[in-house]
Amino acid sequence: MKKYQLMAPGPTPVPSEVLLAMARPIIHHRTPEYAALFTEVRAGLKRLVQTAQEVLPVACSGTGAMEAAVVNTLSPGDRVIVVNAGAFAQRWLAICRAFRLDVVELAAPHGDTVPPARVAETLRAQGSVRAVLVQHSESSTGVLHDVRGYAEATRRTDAILVVDAVSSLGIADVPMDAWGVDVVVSASQKGLMLPPGLGLLALSDKAWAAAARATLPRFYLDLAEERKYAAKNEARFTPAVSIMVGLREVLRMIEAEGLPNVFRRHDRLSRATRAGAEALGLTLFPKTTPSPALTAVAVPAGLDADRVVEGFATQHAITIDGGRGPTKGKIFRIGHMGYATDTDVIIALAALEQVLADLGQPVDFGAGLRGAQKVFAEKS
Amino acid sequence: MKKYQLMAPGPTPVPSEVLLAMARPIIHHRTPEYAALFTEVRAGLKRLVQTAQEVLPVACSGTGAMEAAVVNTLSPGDRVIVVNAGAFAQRWLAICRAFRLDVVELAAPHGDTVPPARVAETLRAQGSVRAVLVQHSESSTGVLHDVRGYAEATRRTDAILVVDAVSSLGIADVPMDAWGVDVVVSASQKGLMLPPGLGLLALSDKAWAAAARATLPRFYLDLAEERKYAAKNEARFTPAVSIMVGLREVLRMIEAEGLPNVFRRHDRLSRATRAGAEALGLTLFPKTTPSPALTAVAVPAGLDADRVVEGFATQHAITIDGGRGPTKGKIFRIGHMGYATDTDVIIALAALEQVLADLGQPVDFGAGLRGAQKVFAEKS
Repeated sequence: MKKYQLMAPGPTPVPSEVLLAMARPIIHHRTPEYAALFTEVRAGLKRLVQTAQEVLPVACSGTGAMEAAVVNTLSPGDRVIVVNAGAFAQRWLAICRAFRLDVVELAAPHGDTVPPARVAETLRAQGSVRAVLVQHSESSTGVLHDVRGYAEATRRTDAILVVDAVSSLGIADVPMDAWGVDVVVSASQKGLMLPPGLGLLALSDKAWAAAARATLPRFYLDLAEERKYAAKNEARFTPAVSIMVGLREVLRMIEAEGLPNVFRRHDRLSRATRAGAEALGLTLFPKTTPSPALTAVAVPAGLDADRVVEGFATQHAITIDGGRGPTKGKIFRIGHMGYATDTDVIIALAALEQVLADLGQPVDFGAGLRGAQKVFAEKS
Repeated sequence: MKKYQLMAPGPTPVPSEVLLAMARPIIHHRTPEYAALFTEVRAGLKRLVQTAQEVLPVACSGTGAMEAAVVNTLSPGDRVIVVNAGAFAQRWLAICRAFRLDVVELAAPHGDTVPPARVAETLRAQGSVRAVLVQHSESSTGVLHDVRGYAEATRRTDAILVVDAVSSLGIADVPMDAWGVDVVVSASQKGLMLPPGLGLLALSDKAWAAAARATLPRFYLDLAEERKYAAKNEARFTPAVSIMVGLREVLRMIEAEGLPNVFRRHDRLSRATRAGAEALGLTLFPKTTPSPALTAVAVPAGLDADRVVEGFATQHAITIDGGRGPTKGKIFRIGHMGYATDTDVIIALAALEQVLADLGQPVDFGAGLRGAQKVFAEKS
């Protein structure tokens, strides 16, 4: 017997209580039951995103939500800056190019970041930039970009700051209103502990003003229309009802734990995972602030990281993930976000020790676990 | 105690077996488990849509799937014909206008249809029409439009036929390849007995050729890209995993029953519901072929149909639906699609007799039920 563990950098495990709530008979979205649910969810989402703005749920994946951010706030030919240091940044590039924007790419090597000063400088040099599009947590590299710094750079310009918070919402602190983020884009299947299929978007007043001018065509993802319905506490189109039911449950769980505690838990899990990996002689992939959502680990020369991923799957029934593009075969990535606790990190590090040994690497058994245990023993 | 019954014209009930399958731990979409699921689902969807083409699942609602049909096959300024005889036809109009198409509207009163000859004539008269967009089952009015006839009208022209089969797939026969439908648009929450949140699209060779020329911008809903991934049996973006798990279950249920039997069941349920309503002295709203997905019933003058809907909800815990726009207060609509059997029709008609009596209408108790029973007693 093996217990299956989903520890990829998303989708992430859904708590059984939430799965069973979602397995209740489907409710119709134009009933008092759904209205009560939507009232509660709307209020909970505002607290989660730390904003006074409406947070709009849309039936789509995270990529659909990213596209919604672009088509609602921009017009063909608009100049935008994309901070590119990973695979999800490349998705911003692909979306912006598909919608014929004038893209200024600020690139950094995978594993690194682009400092806010470079964004500020480019904003000054380029002029008439309409938007800066970034990831908060770049889950392809395990890096946490400095969204607060980017917000300081965009604040006094005409550019809006659009943040992919898919793998940071409910994981790392990103207080939208306090920092001055203009568009928060997120999705259900990471920190929110839900199945994939629900996108979330919140826009600042500055972003809504941009939306009023934006001429890119949109209908399904038209957020101004979505907002009109949300203001009436109604769904515009048939919502992803079962995920919305789950959303009510996870928002209650997050509120019961307390958002600051949720952030502290993720920080602790990520520090423990990093300590464990380093204690095993491995190198962390990020050259800068690591994301609390996942740990990206570089393997020693001569070892194929995809064999590590395979060992987790076949020998330990644990799904983790490998690198993409330039990092393929060079890194593996362990997710510890959402429904994740100390025990998950212990399980992952125990498996890592066994997998490395199976692959012929020298392993001091218990060293990785000891590294994590020391972090868990800290009183904070 | 009241047993809740969802009998709206969508979303529809999800079988408990399917809900519980969806409540199993989330699987990752880049694993052998998901690959096996996707292989099975892809083959099952082709049989369901009766096509040799790939049927592409997209994480979105039915409206998102409708938009996908438009943005993948058309270019700004393209002339299109929309057959408009209901609220969902108006959604085609809204989408086409949002994407700046040149719309020729062929209107008929709600409850009626546009004969294929009128479409053929307009195609000849207008010239250079790129697409004809229709509903198969218009669930706002309970009418089934003549898709086979429309396909004959478009077949020898350059126009593609785009069919909203959201409330007909798995309900009424719409053999895509045999009839020559160019784009079938559907979604999870009607005949497929699943929660909302998954769109389905299939394109003919003629539609794929149109897609190759179409210049409307698209990224999330780019079906040519989706097809490339499907051909590798891979998901392009994170799929709505839990609904895909449910989809495997319902496809197995449909295959076990047999698609022709599924169509016969819906035909029988709709005939029984109509017979019951007429036996109670009510008038059916459709002036033409009724949809087997739902029954739209006009109420006697002086009675507000929304009171009937309310009576079903408050006295009988049954969700049905009312009219929209011009039919508001004038009709009520009972869904009998997807996970629906004789017993559901009996329950709905029993409630209808009680609700009408509560509203002061003369009711011959049992007459509606007798009408349905006679249909159920027919040997077919």
